[in-house]
Amino acid sequence: MGGSLAAALASTRACRRIVGVARRRSTLATARAWRFIDEGTTDLAEGVGHADVVVLCTPVNDIIAKIKGIGALLKPGCVLMDVGSTKRAICAAMETLPEHVQPVGGHPMCGKETSGLTMAEPSLYQDKVFVLTPLERTSPQALGLAYELVQAVGARPLLLDPARHDRLVAIISHLPYMMAVALVNAADALARQDPLAWTLAAGGFRDTSRVAGGSVPMMMDILLTNREPVLGTLCQAREQIDKLINCLERGDDVELQALLEAARRRRTEVYR
Amino acid sequence: MGGSLAAALASTRACRRIVGVARRRSTLATARAWRFIDEGTTDLAEGVGHADVVVLCTPVNDIIAKIKGIGALLKPGCVLMDVGSTKRAICAAMETLPEHVQPVGGHPMCGKETSGLTMAEPSLYQDKVFVLTPLERTSPQALGLAYELVQAVGARPLLLDPARHDRLVAIISHLPYMMAVALVNAADALARQDPLAWTLAAGGFRDTSRVAGGSVPMMMDILLTNREPVLGTLCQAREQIDKLINCLERGDDVELQALLEAARRRRTEVYR
Repeated sequence: MGGSLAAALASTRACRRIVGVARRRSTLATARAWRFIDEGTTDLAEGVGHADVVVLCTPVNDIIAKIKGIGALLKPGCVLMDVGSTKRAICAAMETLPEHVQPVGGHPMCGKETSGLTMAEPSLYQDKVFVLTPLERTSPQALGLAYELVQAVGARPLLLDPARHDRLVAIISHLPYMMAVALVNAADALARQDPLAWTLAAGGFRDTSRVAGGSVPMMMDILLTNREPVLGTLCQAREQIDKLINCLERGDDVELQALLEAARRRRTEVYR
Repeated sequence: MGGSLAAALASTRACRRIVGVARRRSTLATARAWRFIDEGTTDLAEGVGHADVVVLCTPVNDIIAKIKGIGALLKPGCVLMDVGSTKRAICAAMETLPEHVQPVGGHPMCGKETSGLTMAEPSLYQDKVFVLTPLERTSPQALGLAYELVQAVGARPLLLDPARHDRLVAIISHLPYMMAVALVNAADALARQDPLAWTLAAGGFRDTSRVAGGSVPMMMDILLTNREPVLGTLCQAREQIDKLINCLERGDDVELQALLEAARRRRTEVYR
């Protein structure tokens, strides 16, 4: 996410200067060679000290940990953003920042299961929705700068309250992940009696299970900072599976067909 | 499926003559213009009367209906194949064919939600598994011809008993479909309170729900000719969802992580 953001900002020359902060020198060397960043450092204080805007691009719990110590390193008026996948916990941490920092939560809706700089692409954010969750304390100027950054990478800014964001992504992002996990684990349990099943797996299984291949530590952070909303969506999914089971058990083919048609209609409306 | 099969056979010149049978003359005209077929007819008797091999490429229940009347139209020794997605019901119907017909059930593992001749592609079967379910009465010569046809379109033949085939596809094809249906219907129910959810839907939801956009009549045929195996997979999926719900409710993050990791490991092994 961070690599793609730097690449997108560099390609549109939106920033006077882009400074990359990473754990490994090799990452920074690559980012410099590819001209994603103007300079790089493994030292957070050095990297952010002169910045007008800082964007934290690590998993949710690491963002929260960084927020706790970063305030003192930032210059007055610095806009502190992030791209974390849940927003309540992050924005709660942002409330504790010293007053001279201007926090704006963010979440671009363009995840991928692959990560790392070599997977970075400058077009990742193009035409994607980029949620912004400002705090009450956030100044209009700071929010304006966040808007500009989002538009500079080609994304469409959408202002949301952190709790509403978290409820919405539980439905359209975390639930699909949990369903993919349940699908793979169910297939795994069933295929134990006949492993030939995997030989027959085609495009349907591949696509439906794709997100289950994502990073587990990243997903754990997301789920544990969005426990209640995710639980609610899982219970709803269980109800829907119960409905399908009941139709098959009772031989209610009319109701079964109605459920399949409702899903097809909605799916087709969403992805025309 | 039929269009792609004709296109693949035509491109490798595997057949002396390819005759297309369709309901609409316009379909046949297009198939001829694209050189997928040598001749076309809307009359089944005329189309299959001189054939050495006939492949039925319609939804499961229509295949079964066609099998019932087609025997008298076929010449002695004619190999009758199909590409239907379930095999017990079709092979049971094949048992009733007159003795001069040589039946071989088939199922290429390369479904797509799009159908119709305009979506046909000669490479659809390339490197895909193509299940063959011969009957006890099927002669080695007939099975050999079916093998040749499968290999001519670039697919890999796999011999299976019809019941085993149906159990296996329930796991890796019908369960993913039902999970996608449950996901879309759950998201639909949840998003009723806040339709903005759909604005945030990204690649994860798109891929996990893709197969729910498939043809409902086709899927109804499949589910109703594979009711028991599908029910079994759905009950297993419900168990897996219950496990995830329990972990989140009890705060058992160690077990939750283990479930996510198991899914990730299996998914990564299957699609290296």
